[in-house]
Amino acid sequence: MSSPFQGIFLPLTTPFEGDEVAIGQFADNIRRYNAYQPAGYLVLGTTGESVSLTDGESLRLVASARAASPGRPLLAGTGRESTRATVEFSKAAAAEGADAVLVRPPVFFRSALDRPALEHFFRRVADESAAPVLLYNIPSHTGTDLDSGLVRALLKHPNVAGVKDSSGSLALLGEVAPHLEARHTFLMGAGSVLLPGLLLGARGGILALADAAPAQCIALYNLFRDGRLDEALGLQRGLTALDKTLVRTWGVAGLKHALDLLGFHGGLPREPLRPIGEEAKAALAGQLREMGLLR
Amino acid sequence: MSSPFQGIFLPLTTPFEGDEVAIGQFADNIRRYNAYQPAGYLVLGTTGESVSLTDGESLRLVASARAASPGRPLLAGTGRESTRATVEFSKAAAAEGADAVLVRPPVFFRSALDRPALEHFFRRVADESAAPVLLYNIPSHTGTDLDSGLVRALLKHPNVAGVKDSSGSLALLGEVAPHLEARHTFLMGAGSVLLPGLLLGARGGILALADAAPAQCIALYNLFRDGRLDEALGLQRGLTALDKTLVRTWGVAGLKHALDLLGFHGGLPREPLRPIGEEAKAALAGQLREMGLLR
Amino acid sequence: MSSPFQGIFLPLTTPFEGDEVAIGQFADNIRRYNAYQPAGYLVLGTTGESVSLTDGESLRLVASARAASPGRPLLAGTGRESTRATVEFSKAAAAEGADAVLVRPPVFFRSALDRPALEHFFRRVADESAAPVLLYNIPSHTGTDLDSGLVRALLKHPNVAGVKDSSGSLALLGEVAPHLEARHTFLMGAGSVLLPGLLLGARGGILALADAAPAQCIALYNLFRDGRLDEALGLQRGLTALDKTLVRTWGVAGLKHALDLLGFHGGLPREPLRPIGEEAKAALAGQLREMGLLR
Amino acid sequence: MSSPFQGIFLPLTTPFEGDEVAIGQFADNIRRYNAYQPAGYLVLGTTGESVSLTDGESLRLVASARAASPGRPLLAGTGRESTRATVEFSKAAAAEGADAVLVRPPVFFRSALDRPALEHFFRRVADESAAPVLLYNIPSHTGTDLDSGLVRALLKHPNVAGVKDSSGSLALLGEVAPHLEARHTFLMGAGSVLLPGLLLGARGGILALADAAPAQCIALYNLFRDGRLDEALGLQRGLTALDKTLVRTWGVAGLKHALDLLGFHGGLPREPLRPIGEEAKAALAGQLREMGLLR
Repeated sequence: MSSPFQGIFLPLTTPFEGDEVAIGQFADNIRRYNAYQPAGYLVLGTTGESVSLTDGESLRLVASARAASPGRPLLAGTGRESTRATVEFSKAAAAEGADAVLVRPPVFFRSALDRPALEHFFRRVADESAAPVLLYNIPSHTGTDLDSGLVRALLKHPNVAGVKDSSGSLALLGEVAPHLEARHTFLMGAGSVLLPGLLLGARGGILALADAAPAQCIALYNLFRDGRLDEALGLQRGLTALDKTLVRTWGVAGLKHALDLLGFHGGLPREPLRPIGEEAKAALAGQLREMGLLR
Repeated sequence: MSSPFQGIFLPLTTPFEGDEVAIGQFADNIRRYNAYQPAGYLVLGTTGESVSLTDGESLRLVASARAASPGRPLLAGTGRESTRATVEFSKAAAAEGADAVLVRPPVFFRSALDRPALEHFFRRVADESAAPVLLYNIPSHTGTDLDSGLVRALLKHPNVAGVKDSSGSLALLGEVAPHLEARHTFLMGAGSVLLPGLLLGARGGILALADAAPAQCIALYNLFRDGRLDEALGLQRGLTALDKTLVRTWGVAGLKHALDLLGFHGGLPREPLRPIGEEAKAALAGQLREMGLLR
Repeated sequence: MSSPFQGIFLPLTTPFEGDEVAIGQFADNIRRYNAYQPAGYLVLGTTGESVSLTDGESLRLVASARAASPGRPLLAGTGRESTRATVEFSKAAAAEGADAVLVRPPVFFRSALDRPALEHFFRRVADESAAPVLLYNIPSHTGTDLDSGLVRALLKHPNVAGVKDSSGSLALLGEVAPHLEARHTFLMGAGSVLLPGLLLGARGGILALADAAPAQCIALYNLFRDGRLDEALGLQRGLTALDKTLVRTWGVAGLKHALDLLGFHGGLPREPLRPIGEEAKAALAGQLREMGLLR
Repeated sequence: MSSPFQGIFLPLTTPFEGDEVAIGQFADNIRRYNAYQPAGYLVLGTTGESVSLTDGESLRLVASARAASPGRPLLAGTGRESTRATVEFSKAAAAEGADAVLVRPPVFFRSALDRPALEHFFRRVADESAAPVLLYNIPSHTGTDLDSGLVRALLKHPNVAGVKDSSGSLALLGEVAPHLEARHTFLMGAGSVLLPGLLLGARGGILALADAAPAQCIALYNLFRDGRLDEALGLQRGLTALDKTLVRTWGVAGLKHALDLLGFHGGLPREPLRPIGEEAKAALAGQLREMGLLR
């Protein structure tokens, strides 16, 4: 059985109106994105500011995404600081329609979690989660870089369906790719290495970059699949520059501003995140224009 | 008006029975600790595994601590990943009886939070919290080391009542101490620098170490206050060694095991934290014996 | 004019006999490597334990490498802690026959070197060095990750001929590649990302891995150049696994042991580096056998 | 036998004239400092920009310091990247008159040096050095924080005479102090924790801060020794603020500028270090005035 999680997934932002989740705007965004035919969606990722949402808000977003994207795989970020809360919320997300859950390691007690403790955490979640589990590596935010030995061990668990790697490095992919089975996926989380990742065996990406440039990211994936590497490489070059500005420099607040410029519902992030400044806005608009995304 | 938060505070652990909060054991521990006459208690700190608790469990712990410690200042850890959740939970904790709230900076988005964003976060919490706010510096867990310039600016806010510093360094204290007003407190969070901290102007401590050695920590504080430095120094030496083993090496799980040995309700931590191994248990028991805490 | 520094370069180890540089063994290794027709050599790199050599030993190695590799580009690592010493040693290395010098940022005072100071350092070296300068990015050892903005600014200097990037990431390459001129090179320093790097515009590599697997690394480069990506990818997979064991896990000492097994002059590293243990030796031999490098 | 290395040592800067070592100015500074009666001097420390000097320059500085400070203990920083070079230079420094050598761990290969390798490095240096060895802990510059277990093991070596700790933390001191013998010293390297360090058992300091404020640092030490803690504490408060500005913010270049203001030979650092800016100069002068060091 080959993995259902291949291609370009969009990690949805969470629009707010006056600090309340704007669920209608959220669903609107999805309906607009559907026209690009992405492989699927991730709700409650880093880009979705999941750590700033209550469980109630989070589950309404899963349900809304499920309703707005019939027929496409829906992933939900369900990592919590305790094993028990991660399991419970993974079950709840699956009940609302998530096809798989994306689970990061706990952050606050990271220095107390050696490799056996991390493996125990992920195994218990995989044992008890109704939906298949994707391992989420994002060391810039969690402070933990998942080791390839740990990842390979966990991929043997029947309910571990793959990996999302936002490290920006290809080391984990390089060491894991030879051991991936057909049922596994490996999704790049850093837009700057999408094409190199695909070349080394990644099966797609979940890219904040793709929220602003869905057509280009999906085209790159399709060109790669069709063996048209030179054209794919041309797209990658432009996307790398945009990724540096949009995602790596200004983060969620920058991406949301770009979405506003592009006609989606962006809006402000929830605090503690802050809006980007006027200078950043001007630079961002300039780059979107240069890429032909904005006139 | 001088600060009501001076002396040795105990940061309470959260006992579990079969992964459920054992509220009776929690209150029992407090009643036993009352005999040592600590300055007060902290509930929901790092030692209390606050990130692994639900809001409901957390508020029950505040209420229980309030009931079990009449007349002593009660602090509650109320940091959350969003400003809004931190404010709301701080209000709720105050409503259950917390006299002050201890607030750490957000962790997951730390790389997106520059100094103005951090200051904005703490100011909004201080503006909206009913209870006075203590700034909580614990870079080993949050990944953010609060700068003395930021701390000094925040201490001017009328609802910021002081600092707890668990960095293990004296740099922050050294730079902040000359600017502390009478209404402020500065509490050491690292047992290894309690006495040097007091000497430099700290007004007490909130020490995991004191959960296992309450009499010694409180005696050290009293000796210092009475100008009996040589005796205080003798106590500090033993406490430093115990702090290294108990707190810095084995963390919450080690401390809970020590509490079991000492006749308190320790028990196991909630996962993802794991129990300590047999070798660690033996070493720990040996050190408690050496300190005269265990026969 | 297109860069003369393209293809696979071998970063030579420094053999010792009884803690003295074994210059004859060093030249022997080069003569054996010549048969593989590498693009050229790097002497005095990290792999060459340059920080453990005196200037006199270093210059003898440059001269010996020059004599043993007629007609091939010879690079020499000439970074020192002061600007002045870097300039002087770069001149001396060029006088002994180095075609270009590889310069890392200073390490000990790194926290005092902001971006203008780093730029000033590299500019002065480029101004005064007789030989062209390659910028050497190796954050694991220097503690400084060269920023793409700095690198792009420095590449405009007429005596800066390119970059060696041993970060293991593709971020720098991705951001710099669109701005490379024909006269520039960009050489991968991490074997695990050789092929992805080439795809994104790198012009070769300087790979410790290639000391143990020269035929495979050179074949990969040639396959890539000929557009035979699938075959190149097959080679990359095996090389990634070997790189993890040989280079990333056991470092120079492991590589030297592998060279002994493969019939080169490996020997022991100079202290403070220590030989690898028996277990590591067995694992290493197993992996070399698996790769078909050892019978 | 009690340690001869007790009290306040001055870590000498290296004055330059037109990028050449100004040995006359160096000796002048020492003669001026002699009037303050410091415990002794350190030549070739971090403050002395030792990594930017040749061996020849370094040995001339040792000889000059020896001649200019008769009768006072003279320490010399002799750490090098290889064990062999560290041993050889330690011998040479002793031959020029150094009474003890200060040795830091190697930096460039730090990730390859596990605890046994570090211990082996220091033991071989201690075995072969003519002069007694002080272990130098300065993690901000070396990237390695010496563990108290390692330090305690090394202190048993008959030729290891003590520790200089510039970590800014009191953890190492706290864990080592109970095991110090009379023949050992433990010198604080961070001015902000001089008094707390003395209280916990340190036997003096080697303080860049003391180059600008020798009278105050020495007075603090004497007040502590005489049991006049309150007065010592008053001095410590001012020194902490100066240390933050002078040493921790602007480093060697800032200290040298302060020396110029104070009538010593300061001058510019050797590159890659750069002079401080006009704004920093103004702030520094302001602070020296506030401290009463400058009119």
